[in-house]
Amino acid sequence: MTEKNQQILLARRPAGAVEEGNFRLVEAEVPQPAEGQFLVRNLFLSLDPYMRGRMSEAKSYAKPAEVGQVMVGGAVGEVVASRHPKFKPGDKVEGPFGWQLYALSDGKGVRKIEERGIPLSAYLGVLGMPGVTAYIGLLDIGQPKAGETLVVSAASGAVGGVVGQIAKIQGCRAVGIAGGADKCRFAVEELGYDACVDYKAGRLDEDLPRAVPGGVDVYFDNVGGEITDSVLLRMNAFSRIPLCGLISEYGRPEPRGLKNVRSLLVNRIKLQGFIVSDHLQRWPAALADLARWVAEGKIKYRETVAEGLRNAPTAFIGMLSGKNLGKQVVKLS
Amino acid sequence: MTEKNQQILLARRPAGAVEEGNFRLVEAEVPQPAEGQFLVRNLFLSLDPYMRGRMSEAKSYAKPAEVGQVMVGGAVGEVVASRHPKFKPGDKVEGPFGWQLYALSDGKGVRKIEERGIPLSAYLGVLGMPGVTAYIGLLDIGQPKAGETLVVSAASGAVGGVVGQIAKIQGCRAVGIAGGADKCRFAVEELGYDACVDYKAGRLDEDLPRAVPGGVDVYFDNVGGEITDSVLLRMNAFSRIPLCGLISEYGRPEPRGLKNVRSLLVNRIKLQGFIVSDHLQRWPAALADLARWVAEGKIKYRETVAEGLRNAPTAFIGMLSGKNLGKQVVKLS
Repeated sequence: MTEKNQQILLARRPAGAVEEGNFRLVEAEVPQPAEGQFLVRNLFLSLDPYMRGRMSEAKSYAKPAEVGQVMVGGAVGEVVASRHPKFKPGDKVEGPFGWQLYALSDGKGVRKIEERGIPLSAYLGVLGMPGVTAYIGLLDIGQPKAGETLVVSAASGAVGGVVGQIAKIQGCRAVGIAGGADKCRFAVEELGYDACVDYKAGRLDEDLPRAVPGGVDVYFDNVGGEITDSVLLRMNAFSRIPLCGLISEYGRPEPRGLKNVRSLLVNRIKLQGFIVSDHLQRWPAALADLARWVAEGKIKYRETVAEGLRNAPTAFIGMLSGKNLGKQVVKLS
Repeated sequence: MTEKNQQILLARRPAGAVEEGNFRLVEAEVPQPAEGQFLVRNLFLSLDPYMRGRMSEAKSYAKPAEVGQVMVGGAVGEVVASRHPKFKPGDKVEGPFGWQLYALSDGKGVRKIEERGIPLSAYLGVLGMPGVTAYIGLLDIGQPKAGETLVVSAASGAVGGVVGQIAKIQGCRAVGIAGGADKCRFAVEELGYDACVDYKAGRLDEDLPRAVPGGVDVYFDNVGGEITDSVLLRMNAFSRIPLCGLISEYGRPEPRGLKNVRSLLVNRIKLQGFIVSDHLQRWPAALADLARWVAEGKIKYRETVAEGLRNAPTAFIGMLSGKNLGKQVVKLS
């Protein structure tokens, strides 16, 4: 093999907002699999908000990424060489292969993709970690009942877009919060939300109540901060908040937090932080339902595709400030 | 009957901190029961932090108290006249009789007290709403397991003092947070806490970690604010926060809220606001266990007793700033 591997390393930890200088592109030899390993050529790289947390040293649910090492991340690719009994060249796989063109794997955390006409990149989104996150967070933690009102922040994103559509399948009123008129139009016209509020219009405290005249029964939170404080004032008694992400906090040197904590008490709200990897036993059922809903046209999805590994940092920084519509991926070949 | 009734009315709503001027003492005729009613002479009046919420107009779990009306509140008393089939003169009763010497009741929300050598005032504390609040919040929502570490704020109060002792009965390490060395000494020496941190010493971020070297599995929160932010930094993965009160917020014109919301996500914390009156079906079991534990000496309690209805406002204001040790009551005769 004469081709070189390319890798994006974590060059230094961000002090606040992520910058291009936090990353470094390097070339390396394409490695050869040892006994029990296989070599993957990555086709699509996933970019997800959780990666921002891994770039910092603060205690989190996963160990931080190491400075000088390849950035962590999921990818789909094709096995090109194997000394692993369960994977053979030509297999399509999804796994934690990192920000690079070629990766070695021992099969841990890797799933084989049965191709059935769905584009491979979807296994990083609606049929991957973000889709399962939406499914478990909404159904297991949010426990929506038909007729209830769901609100989801980052409503047109990789997770949020699936949350709203599952809520509709459950018979809920689904209301999104997103940044910009385009995202809101997409949420209502393409994803089927009943309403979507553009928080960038600067009138969330007036616009949200009109979109949820009966209050909020489930708030699927991806963002935290001011948006969540506004939603807290509309929560109904015995409502639920699956806490999935805090993207509004990630770039801040000091946390902003929440002001309207009183609503949690007064309305007897159950708020639960969750991480999809804690719920591995639920993945098969979630993926089966999601695949069926996609095949039936009940769940639609959109991707924002960056081209080439060297553009991953720019795409990642853009995603953290909400430039993507739907799932952000990087096409590698 | 020649005696007059005395009542304390809500004179005006507090703007921030509660003041004496928010109340007004008036005299009135002692009322006579209509058919289906009975008349109670109150013996002890309960003072509880939740009453602060009822003094405000803001939406809460119960309707606000009305200006010009008798202040809401629980009391124990003796039936002195009755046209109700289930209550007769001489019965000792506990119910929502308000800040007054005499009250009419139709029996709603009233329980008859079977006297068994426990002082009547205890039915406002450890064997009443605060005790049941501690029981349900800790056991049903906090779900402590033997060997786990519990932290409770307002640890020597009417609720907190019972929480710590039930946690010990469950085999937990019980750590209190209280204001002042006296309260902490009382918590450890009389109530049996393993440790108690005096937040008024101003070193909570250093003192708390020493008291909870293995982190916190259940945080029973009565206070919110800075204390809760400090505890949030010590929470373990999959820990629980029964949210019972936010006494640090009650006097503020603007909420302070919480900064360290990220811990809720990173540690997959389940936080649940609760109100004891939502769980009426659990009261009999709770009261039976609490009465047994008190009789066995496994749960101790302390009261701070004010004398005379006219001193109720001062005692209430003092309780809101933490001047009481244990349950605050007012002796009325």
